[in-house]
Amino acid sequence: MKSIRIIDSTLRDGMHAVSHQFTPEQMAMIAGKLDEAGVDTVEVGHGDGLGGSSFQYGFSKATEEQYLKAVSEALTKTKLAVLLIPGIGTVEDLEVAMEYGVKTVRVATHVTEADAGEQHIKFAKKSGLEAIGFLMMSHMAPPEKVLEQAKLFESYGADTVYITDSAGAMLPHDVRARIGLVSKELSVPIGFHAHNNLGLAVGNTLTAIEAGAASVDGTVCGLGAGSGNSQLEALIAVLNKGGYNTGADLYKLMDLSKEVEGLMHRPQTINSDSLAIGYAGAYGSFLLHSRRAAEKFGVDAREILLELGRRKTVGGQEDMIIDVAIELAKAKSSK
Amino acid sequence: MKSIRIIDSTLRDGMHAVSHQFTPEQMAMIAGKLDEAGVDTVEVGHGDGLGGSSFQYGFSKATEEQYLKAVSEALTKTKLAVLLIPGIGTVEDLEVAMEYGVKTVRVATHVTEADAGEQHIKFAKKSGLEAIGFLMMSHMAPPEKVLEQAKLFESYGADTVYITDSAGAMLPHDVRARIGLVSKELSVPIGFHAHNNLGLAVGNTLTAIEAGAASVDGTVCGLGAGSGNSQLEALIAVLNKGGYNTGADLYKLMDLSKEVEGLMHRPQTINSDSLAIGYAGAYGSFLLHSRRAAEKFGVDAREILLELGRRKTVGGQEDMIIDVAIELAKAKSSK
Repeated sequence: MKSIRIIDSTLRDGMHAVSHQFTPEQMAMIAGKLDEAGVDTVEVGHGDGLGGSSFQYGFSKATEEQYLKAVSEALTKTKLAVLLIPGIGTVEDLEVAMEYGVKTVRVATHVTEADAGEQHIKFAKKSGLEAIGFLMMSHMAPPEKVLEQAKLFESYGADTVYITDSAGAMLPHDVRARIGLVSKELSVPIGFHAHNNLGLAVGNTLTAIEAGAASVDGTVCGLGAGSGNSQLEALIAVLNKGGYNTGADLYKLMDLSKEVEGLMHRPQTINSDSLAIGYAGAYGSFLLHSRRAAEKFGVDAREILLELGRRKTVGGQEDMIIDVAIELAKAKSSK
Repeated sequence: MKSIRIIDSTLRDGMHAVSHQFTPEQMAMIAGKLDEAGVDTVEVGHGDGLGGSSFQYGFSKATEEQYLKAVSEALTKTKLAVLLIPGIGTVEDLEVAMEYGVKTVRVATHVTEADAGEQHIKFAKKSGLEAIGFLMMSHMAPPEKVLEQAKLFESYGADTVYITDSAGAMLPHDVRARIGLVSKELSVPIGFHAHNNLGLAVGNTLTAIEAGAASVDGTVCGLGAGSGNSQLEALIAVLNKGGYNTGADLYKLMDLSKEVEGLMHRPQTINSDSLAIGYAGAYGSFLLHSRRAAEKFGVDAREILLELGRRKTVGGQEDMIIDVAIELAKAKSSK
């Protein structure tokens, strides 16, 4: 029976779904039950990771230290992890997190920018942490490019490298191509983090495992940015049926899902907005800008998103949105 | 580009999610927009099909005639279909439906009981209707048995045969095995109807198409029994990205999904109950009985469901639930 490591991100990616407003007490409750259920690792903090609580990304209910303290006290066997996006978080933030018992850090960069995480991976390894390289928006790069970047993370000392479908834009064959190639070529375990914008999160996670992934993410009730993540309790049910060993107790997770339901701000569904993001393969943060530009120039916001996806526009290139809207409006009027 | 037929079941299977309470006006609005969006066929009526509105299955808001009249007047190109479960509906019900322009009937039986649909398929063909054989709970029979039953439907004159994952219990390899075998051995098109209890509805539908299915079901917002169906707008997005031609307009379906959201009684999510059904592969109607028996005998309702699934207990065998609960209680006390 193949063993699969489960990293739960309810208390990090799931924070997006509650506008980063879980309290430390709620986090401790959820983490304690994930620990009881035998989940291997829990990732904790603001949705955008260390340093995320800010005017730009939204303030979380409590400070990182308060969250980490509360959760670390609730854990007995489950490992405590944080996310670090270089540019948002720093090695100094990581040093603070280590004081609260963090054992694992996921260093997240855009799929073509693993080098931005070099110093953070190296610092984590030197400090005795487990370091995971996390390649975001992996649908935007072809498998060979993803492999090149994954190899960079491995060369920095990463213990595991994650392929991350941040926009929930991958079809199963996209997952198979990337995970298959990277897990064949690297000697460290490969992970997969799904989003549900196209309704494929659980299925793609299974596909990733079949293609060689040894570590996968899930969140209770599917909480997460956009349409949310791979719903943990459904994923464990699928993996149990498929004959995989995760160490996680399905019934305890189902019981926990009832409690988490009561803490949710909105149901975690696929709506027109999150579907548009998955369809276009664009950044979630482009949605609002695209809608404003669409209104101003009399075009469909979804067409703007689609074009941004085609052009592989990345975060920071928001100016492009107006350009695309103007071009679409011109094309429309010349028809 | 491979063409895929889309049958929308928002106004039939989706009725389960609103306790069969859509009004004829709401149905006409939804059907009209599905027609505008280019959906091939819409299935209409009580969640349990013709004759379903009853004390036993719950009364629908309006009569079949009222629904069919309202919807048929709203359609221009889209075909109008009904579901007929022999034992609930009759050929007389079908004769009435035909007066309102129904062109397609899906005759639904348990996966091992296609013969119960013989007279209905034959009557439909004699009457000039399109007839579809619909094998429910198809996860309960191995591929060879599903093939045998599908061949029966074909021999009665069915124009298409559907493999139906009523409990949302199939993993992708279960879908591949059944659809692959049946589509290879039959000369009529094969269809697939998914449920989302394990979070796999959209992914399994894509798998079915890759394995040979030519006709698939979806519902707007994923409305349907249990965890719902394959969410139509997500499915169309996936099929567009995958290079399939469905004739359906994604943006129009996304716009419609916003209107349907406003008519829903509850969000269509995977909760602990519906997940338990998918995990066990048991009938949805066993849930309440199992919970009562669990309470009475001090066992876990999910263990009862799991055992019912293992024994392939079918509807009508509800007595078995108490037997299973007693056995589990005995096993528990002797530990």
